Amino acid sequence: MSPAIGRPARSGVPAAGGPGRIVLGGPPRADDRAGGPGDADGPVGRARPVVDEAADLSDIAFGPDGLVVTVVQEFATREVLMVAHMDAEALRRTLESGRTWFWSRSRQEYWCKGETSGDRQWVRKVSYDCDGDAVLVEVEQDGRGACHTGARTCFYRAFGGEG
Amino acid sequence: MSPAIGRPARSGVPAAGGPGRIVLGGPPRADDRAGGPGDADGPVGRARPVVDEAADLSDIAFGPDGLVVTVVQEFATREVLMVAHMDAEALRRTLESGRTWFWSRSRQEYWCKGETSGDRQWVRKVSYDCDGDAVLVEVEQDGRGACHTGARTCFYRAFGGEG
Repeated sequence: MSPAIGRPARSGVPAAGGPGRIVLGGPPRADDRAGGPGDADGPVGRARPVVDEAADLSDIAFGPDGLVVTVVQEFATREVLMVAHMDAEALRRTLESGRTWFWSRSRQEYWCKGETSGDRQWVRKVSYDCDGDAVLVEVEQDGRGACHTGARTCFYRAFGGEG
Repeated sequence: MSPAIGRPARSGVPAAGGPGRIVLGGPPRADDRAGGPGDADGPVGRARPVVDEAADLSDIAFGPDGLVVTVVQEFATREVLMVAHMDAEALRRTLESGRTWFWSRSRQEYWCKGETSGDRQWVRKVSYDCDGDAVLVEVEQDGRGACHTGARTCFYRAFGGEG
């Protein structure tokens, strides 16, 4: 189930910025305010959209299932918090809203991290690897942490017992 | 193609330590010396096998393709270096040898990081996430870095141009 959003996904569709370019981020437009990614915040608050005139999602090698593995790391401490998946639309929403959006494989729906729990993630940097098949999102983490168990990081268990 | 190894994979097979347990790491055994994971090092050097009597690979939720996403992070700086995939055998080799082993989906073979390039990774900690479907390996990184391009990290490109 896709959430009701105010406009269709435009991933891969060149924007007005020029052929082959997707203009990401920038000031919110009127049609973003109704049902768009920004709404997950209510007030935009600490969100900083990633503005990149040359951003080209075609650098990202989404898999056969349309997804790319995404690592979320805390910006200040560099702790790895979680791993999840994005499709092109979730990545676009993440860049535009400054909040983390993922695709849930189990629930088959988009989710904005912290929207239910309050443990929001505020995007500070979005990188991608040499093959374009992994994304790294550095965030400021709100609340208790990233894990649904209440742990700061999902990686709270380790072989050798030093978790 | 699997590399020639001196003994069959025993992933998921309980070892002598007790039912349902897999004994990982520990002192090298005679049969490990011929063709086993330790050989990738020649001399064991800085390798520190992860010794965990209770380690249970059944905590790891390998996907339908038998693989688990693995994030490699530099132990000292906490920089995220790369993302790759392990199957149970690659994870077992990683824990036992103290070097990072992966499964290459493109080449359909095991690889030990740095074995060709010299950019070896020495395992310091292996964690896994709440769902068991992602592994985090903290390493000391040898040589130029983790990326085949010569970059320190594979995540050298960022949206917004701050890569």
